[in-house]
Amino acid sequence: MKKLNVGLVGCGFMGRAHSNAHRKVGNFFDLEYQPVLKAICDFNEERAKSHAARWGFESVETDWKKLIARDDIDLIDICLPNNAHAEVAIAAAKAGKMIICEKPLARDGKEAEGMVKAIEKAKVPNFVSFNYRRVPAVTLAKRLIEEGRLGRIFHYRAKFLQDWTISKDVPQGGDALWRLDVKAAGSGVTGDLLAHCIDTALWLNGSIEKVNAMTETFVKERVHQLTGKVQKVGIDDACAVLARFANGSLATFESTRYARGHKALYTFEINGEHASIAWDLHDLHRLAYFDHRDEGKLRGWRSIHVTDHGGDHPYMDKWWVPGLQIGFEHSFVHQLADFLEGLASGKAARPTFRDALETQYVCDAILHSAKTGRWEKVKTV
Amino acid sequence: MKKLNVGLVGCGFMGRAHSNAHRKVGNFFDLEYQPVLKAICDFNEERAKSHAARWGFESVETDWKKLIARDDIDLIDICLPNNAHAEVAIAAAKAGKMIICEKPLARDGKEAEGMVKAIEKAKVPNFVSFNYRRVPAVTLAKRLIEEGRLGRIFHYRAKFLQDWTISKDVPQGGDALWRLDVKAAGSGVTGDLLAHCIDTALWLNGSIEKVNAMTETFVKERVHQLTGKVQKVGIDDACAVLARFANGSLATFESTRYARGHKALYTFEINGEHASIAWDLHDLHRLAYFDHRDEGKLRGWRSIHVTDHGGDHPYMDKWWVPGLQIGFEHSFVHQLADFLEGLASGKAARPTFRDALETQYVCDAILHSAKTGRWEKVKTV
Amino acid sequence: MKKLNVGLVGCGFMGRAHSNAHRKVGNFFDLEYQPVLKAICDFNEERAKSHAARWGFESVETDWKKLIARDDIDLIDICLPNNAHAEVAIAAAKAGKMIICEKPLARDGKEAEGMVKAIEKAKVPNFVSFNYRRVPAVTLAKRLIEEGRLGRIFHYRAKFLQDWTISKDVPQGGDALWRLDVKAAGSGVTGDLLAHCIDTALWLNGSIEKVNAMTETFVKERVHQLTGKVQKVGIDDACAVLARFANGSLATFESTRYARGHKALYTFEINGEHASIAWDLHDLHRLAYFDHRDEGKLRGWRSIHVTDHGGDHPYMDKWWVPGLQIGFEHSFVHQLADFLEGLASGKAARPTFRDALETQYVCDAILHSAKTGRWEKVKTV
Amino acid sequence: MKKLNVGLVGCGFMGRAHSNAHRKVGNFFDLEYQPVLKAICDFNEERAKSHAARWGFESVETDWKKLIARDDIDLIDICLPNNAHAEVAIAAAKAGKMIICEKPLARDGKEAEGMVKAIEKAKVPNFVSFNYRRVPAVTLAKRLIEEGRLGRIFHYRAKFLQDWTISKDVPQGGDALWRLDVKAAGSGVTGDLLAHCIDTALWLNGSIEKVNAMTETFVKERVHQLTGKVQKVGIDDACAVLARFANGSLATFESTRYARGHKALYTFEINGEHASIAWDLHDLHRLAYFDHRDEGKLRGWRSIHVTDHGGDHPYMDKWWVPGLQIGFEHSFVHQLADFLEGLASGKAARPTFRDALETQYVCDAILHSAKTGRWEKVKTV
Repeated sequence: MKKLNVGLVGCGFMGRAHSNAHRKVGNFFDLEYQPVLKAICDFNEERAKSHAARWGFESVETDWKKLIARDDIDLIDICLPNNAHAEVAIAAAKAGKMIICEKPLARDGKEAEGMVKAIEKAKVPNFVSFNYRRVPAVTLAKRLIEEGRLGRIFHYRAKFLQDWTISKDVPQGGDALWRLDVKAAGSGVTGDLLAHCIDTALWLNGSIEKVNAMTETFVKERVHQLTGKVQKVGIDDACAVLARFANGSLATFESTRYARGHKALYTFEINGEHASIAWDLHDLHRLAYFDHRDEGKLRGWRSIHVTDHGGDHPYMDKWWVPGLQIGFEHSFVHQLADFLEGLASGKAARPTFRDALETQYVCDAILHSAKTGRWEKVKTV
Repeated sequence: MKKLNVGLVGCGFMGRAHSNAHRKVGNFFDLEYQPVLKAICDFNEERAKSHAARWGFESVETDWKKLIARDDIDLIDICLPNNAHAEVAIAAAKAGKMIICEKPLARDGKEAEGMVKAIEKAKVPNFVSFNYRRVPAVTLAKRLIEEGRLGRIFHYRAKFLQDWTISKDVPQGGDALWRLDVKAAGSGVTGDLLAHCIDTALWLNGSIEKVNAMTETFVKERVHQLTGKVQKVGIDDACAVLARFANGSLATFESTRYARGHKALYTFEINGEHASIAWDLHDLHRLAYFDHRDEGKLRGWRSIHVTDHGGDHPYMDKWWVPGLQIGFEHSFVHQLADFLEGLASGKAARPTFRDALETQYVCDAILHSAKTGRWEKVKTV
Repeated sequence: MKKLNVGLVGCGFMGRAHSNAHRKVGNFFDLEYQPVLKAICDFNEERAKSHAARWGFESVETDWKKLIARDDIDLIDICLPNNAHAEVAIAAAKAGKMIICEKPLARDGKEAEGMVKAIEKAKVPNFVSFNYRRVPAVTLAKRLIEEGRLGRIFHYRAKFLQDWTISKDVPQGGDALWRLDVKAAGSGVTGDLLAHCIDTALWLNGSIEKVNAMTETFVKERVHQLTGKVQKVGIDDACAVLARFANGSLATFESTRYARGHKALYTFEINGEHASIAWDLHDLHRLAYFDHRDEGKLRGWRSIHVTDHGGDHPYMDKWWVPGLQIGFEHSFVHQLADFLEGLASGKAARPTFRDALETQYVCDAILHSAKTGRWEKVKTV
Repeated sequence: MKKLNVGLVGCGFMGRAHSNAHRKVGNFFDLEYQPVLKAICDFNEERAKSHAARWGFESVETDWKKLIARDDIDLIDICLPNNAHAEVAIAAAKAGKMIICEKPLARDGKEAEGMVKAIEKAKVPNFVSFNYRRVPAVTLAKRLIEEGRLGRIFHYRAKFLQDWTISKDVPQGGDALWRLDVKAAGSGVTGDLLAHCIDTALWLNGSIEKVNAMTETFVKERVHQLTGKVQKVGIDDACAVLARFANGSLATFESTRYARGHKALYTFEINGEHASIAWDLHDLHRLAYFDHRDEGKLRGWRSIHVTDHGGDHPYMDKWWVPGLQIGFEHSFVHQLADFLEGLASGKAARPTFRDALETQYVCDAILHSAKTGRWEKVKTV
C-alpha cells in the first residue's frame, strides 16, 4: 500500500467533505493508494488548528505557498472560494503536485484555460470535484445510457433549485457567503449550481453546441460582510437556459436560489426513444426508470432503490446491506476512490481539468447569451 | 338493444352513485341491455321526487313493496341502509326481479343466508356492489395474479383507514349517519370498510380459513339523531385482524375511522414468490408492481398509470385517451356494464349474493374472534 | 329551469367529452339553465347518427350551416379540428348563437382576432374550453394565489409531456390524427399542449411580456392519411420556451410528444416569496403546497388530496364523499356548470374568446421566436 | 478531552457499522469523550487483523476473555451473534467495563434478565444499539409526540419487510447467515426485525400490555452451513401481531423476509386525535406529518425533508447543509454521540439494557402467543 500525502487547502463546507473522504475511503475501498492527512492549510490559523484537531491532520499551514513548497506533500486538494482556484492550482502544478480541485474549476473559461494549460504542461494527475457523478444512482444512469438502452435521445432537462437567499437580509461576501459575492464566485447560481447540471449533462449526453439563456438578480443590493456596506449584487440569482446538444436532443436547464420549498433539488431527466431516466438529489438513493419495451400492461416508472450488491448498483458493495441508503457525503468518497484507482491503473478518473473546462465554456456561453438575448455557440475544448 | 327497467330504492350517497351508473353506462359501453330509469323509491316522497327530477327517473314510489309489485320493473337496485337489504331483496326475489344490492349484503351471515336462499330459489340474476373490484388497477391486479405472475403467495395485507368520526360531537343514526348506528348497520367499520378489503382479498387470493381479531369503540356514547338522546355506541370504531388463507399465505387486515389524515385510504398489497402488487384508493388510477425477475440493476416498484388502451388496461378503452384518469364513480359504471354483459352472455357477473355471503362469514368470524380473543374458523359457503 | 338547446359539432374525442358534460351537469349541479342535447352535427352522417344514439341527441345534421340556421338551437358547441373553428364560430356569432369552442381558439392569432371581432360584435356569450382551469386542484391553486399566500412570484414553470408520436410509423392527418397535420392544427405541440400551459399561466400569474423559444420536428416525414403519401411534417414535435411575466417572474415552458414514459404529464409549479404550489395532471386530484411560514421543523411539501367538502375544495361538494377522487372528464362538467351559471348571473365564465386570444398571441410569439432565435414581445390583447 | 478505549468484539456487518461510528463521531460532534480504537477481537485471527488494518485498531485479540481482562480497555462493544451477547456482556460487567451491545439484547427475556442483573450490579454504563431511534426523522417524531401534538393516540402500526430468504437455496447458519439459525439468533424475524419496531414503539408510544400473534416458517428445511446437512429451520420467517398499548391505542406489527420488493422496509405510522406521523426506512431522511389543525383547504400529508439546521432537525446541524441527506450509518454515529454525552453528563443515553429487556419481553409474549393462539400479557420490567 502506497501512502499519498494530502495537503488540503480550505476548512469550509467542502474542506470538511474532502477531509471526511480522505479519512474514510480506505475503510471501505481496497486501494493501492492510501491518503494520509498530512497538512491542512487555512489563512486563519485558529480555524486550521481546529480543523486539524478534529480530522487528524498531522500539521497546519497558513500560507498555501508554503504548503505547496513542502516535499512531503503529494496531492494538493483545493477547497477554496472560486477566485483562489487558479492561483493555487497553477502553483501546485508547477511544483509537480497532483491536484484535486473543487468545482467549478474557475470563475470563467479564460481563467480555467490557464489552469488546464499549467496542469497539462506539468503532466500531473488532476481531478475536479463534480461529486454528483458518483452518486450511485447517477452512475447507474450513465451505465444504462452507455448500454444503449435509451436509444436516440430527444430531451434532456435539469434543474438545481434552492431557496436560501430569498430574504433581503442575507448578506453577501465573507467566509460563509462568498458564493453571493461575484468577485469571489465569478457568477451566482450558474457557476455554483448549474455547473453541476452541466457537468452531469455533458457526461451523460455529450457536448452542448449552443445555448440561449436568461438570468435575473432578484435582490439588487445586499450588505457586504467584509465592508459592512450595502453594495450592488453582482451575481445571478436565477438562470434558465435552452440548449441544443450535438446529438440533436433539446434541453432546458434552470438554477435558482428563489424556489421556495426546495433546499437542494438537483433533478435531471433524459428521454430517449426507448427509455427514460430521472433522478433527484433530495432522494439521491433512487433512480426512476421507464422502459417502453416492457410488456404493455406493466409499463410504469420504476423507482429503483439503488442499494443492491453483487455489482448491480455502483459502489454499493462497499457499504452496508441492500435497502440501507447512503447519503451526500458518500459521493466524495466514491470520487476519491476512483481518483486513487486511476493513479494505480494509469487511467485517470474524470472529470479532469480539461473536462471541467468544457463545463466552464458552457457556463460562459450561458452568461453571454443572457446578455445578448441570442443563441450563443459553446466554445469547443 | 333490450331495455332493462330499473327500480332503484334509496336516494343517498349510493343511490346517486347507482343512478349515475345506470344513466351513463350506455354512453360508454356497447351493451345489449340498456338500463331505463323507470322508478325511484324513497319513503321520503319529496326526496324521491327531487331525485327523480335530477336524474330523469320516470316515476316515483314511496313504498318499496309497490315498486316490487310493478310489472314494468325488471331490476330492483337496493341502495338502502344494511338493515333493509334482506327484506327488500327477499321480496324482490320472490317477485322474480333481478337484484343489485349495495354491500355489505346484510348485517350478518345469518341474515345473508336467508337472502341467498331466496334468490337462488327464485333463480334471478343477482349482484352485490363491491365496486372496488372494477377499479381498473384492481382488475389489472386480478389479471396479473391469474396469469400466475406472482408465484406462491406469502403475504396479503389490506387496510381501510378513515378519520371522520374522531370528534365526539358526531352523532349516530338517521339518514346520513346510519352507518354509526349498530341497528341499521349491523356493525361498524367491519361491515362498512373491512368488508371491501375482504371481498377483494377473497377474489384475489382465495378463501380465508381462520381469523384472529380485535375491535375497539373509542367513543362510547354519541347523541342519536333519531331519539335526540345520548346513547351507547354499538358499532366497532376500529378492527384489526390476523388471518390465514387457504393457500397458506398470512394476512393482516385493518379498518378504522380514527386514522387522522386518511379520508378513504383503502390499500392492499400482496407479496408473491416472484412479484408483488400494491394499490391505494387515494390514487386509484395507479397500480404498483414489483417483479423480481426483472434484470437485477433495474428492479424497482413500477408505478403503472392504469389508463392505457389497446386492451392493456381493463375498461380504459371505453373512456378517454391514455394518461387521463378516471375516478371513483367509474367503478360503478364498470360493474353495471359487467352485470349487463352477464345478462346477455348468461355468465353471471360476480360477486353474486353467494359470493358476498363468504365475505359476510369472514366478517362474522372477525367479530366473533374479537369477543373470544381466539382464532375462529370461517364458515364455508 | 330554463332549457338551453345545444347543437354540438364534431363527434371525436372532444365531442364525447362535451356530450358527457352536457348530459351530466344537471345531475350534479343546481342550475337555472339545463342543456338539452338538441342536435349533433358531423359531415359523416353515420358517425353523427351513432353519436346521437349513444348520447341521446334528438336530431342529426351533416352540414353545420344548417345547424346554425336552425331556430331551435341556442348554443353551438364546436368540437372540430382547429382549422374549422373560425368559420363555424363566426357564422354562429352572426346567427346570434352562444358559442363554446374547443381550445385552442384558432390556428393563430390573426385567425383568432377575426373570431373575437365577430363574437364581440354579435354580443353572444362565448367560452373557450381550456378545461384544466376547472380541475379542482388547479382552481384551488388559483384561490391560494388570489389570497396572496405566495407573496412576490419568482418562478413559473410548466410542461406538457407526451410520448405517443415517437414511432415513425404514426401517420399524419385524417380523422384521429389531424393534430399532426399542420394545415388542420395550425401548429404541433405548441397549439395542442403548450396552449393549455399558457392559458393556466396567464390565469394564475398574469400576462407574459416576452418569450424566447426553440422548436423541433424530430420526425421529418410521415404518411398522410388522406393522401396516402409520405409528406413533410409541418408541425412542431417539441417546443421549449423561456419567458418573462409582467410581474417580473421568470418562466420556462416545454411541450413535446417525445418524452418517453409520459402519457399526458401536464405539470406546473409556481414559486413565491412565501409559498410554492405544484400540480400534475397524472394525479390531478392532488395539489402540492409548501409554505415557508409553517413552523420550521414541520415545513414540508403537503400533498393535498383535493376531495374535501364544506367549501374547502372547489366543486367537490357536488360529487361523492371526501377521499373519493374524480377524473379528467369532470373538468368539462365544471366549466359547463360555470358557463351556465355565468348565463344566469350575467357574469361571464372565463376564458372568453378574448381571453383565449391572449394565449394565441403568446403561442404566436413562441413560434416566431423559434424562427428568429431571439426574444419576441407578446402582442397585447 | 478524555480518551475512551474501545474493545470491539465481532467483525461482521455490525462490527463495521460500530467501527465507523467510533472512528467518525469526533469528526462531527464536539464531545468530552473521544473513542480510541484500542482493540478488535474476533476468534478468526485473520479477519481480526484485516479489520484492524482497515479501521485503524491498535491491537488484535482472538479471545474475548483476554480482551475483557485488559486494563487498557474502557468499553466493550459487542457486535456478535445473539447467542454470544449474554456471556460476553456479563463477563464485561463483572470486569467493570462499560458496554454497548448490538440488538436484540439476547435470545429471550430470561437470558436478557441475567444480563440486566449483572450490569446493574456492576453499575457500569450500558447501552443497546437500537439505532433507528437516532435516525433524525425518527427522533423528530419523538419530539413531536413529546410536545403533545398528536393528542390521544388511537393507532400504531409498524412493519419490517425484507425479501432476501425467499429462495430455498439460501443456507442457514455460519458467519453471514447466523440470523437464520435459531440456536445463534434465538428467533427469526421477531428478534431481528420486529425487535426494532417494538423498541421504537415503546419509545414513542409507551408500554405494550398484551399481544396476539402468528408466525410462520415458509421454508421448512435448509442446508446448514456449518454441518453441510439439510436441517429443519427453527426460526420464524414471518410474524404478525395485534397489540394493545397501555395508553389504549391499538397496534399491528409485522415482520417478514418474504415480502418481495422490499429490502429493508421498516415503516411505522402513528395516528393521534389531532395529527399523524409516518416514517419509512427506505427514505429515512423524510418524515410524513399530517395535522388536522391545519387550515381546512390546505390539509395534507407533509413530506418533511429532515435536513434542516438551526435546531429544527435533530443531529443535522452536525452534518452538511440543508437538503443534503445522510444515510443508514449515521444513526450509529448519533447513538454513539449520545452515549458519550451521557457519560459526560451523567444522564445515561437510552435504551439501556433494562429498556431493551422490555422489548425482549414483548418479543417473548409474541412468540408465546403464536404458539397458544391467544392474547398473552407482556411481562413488566
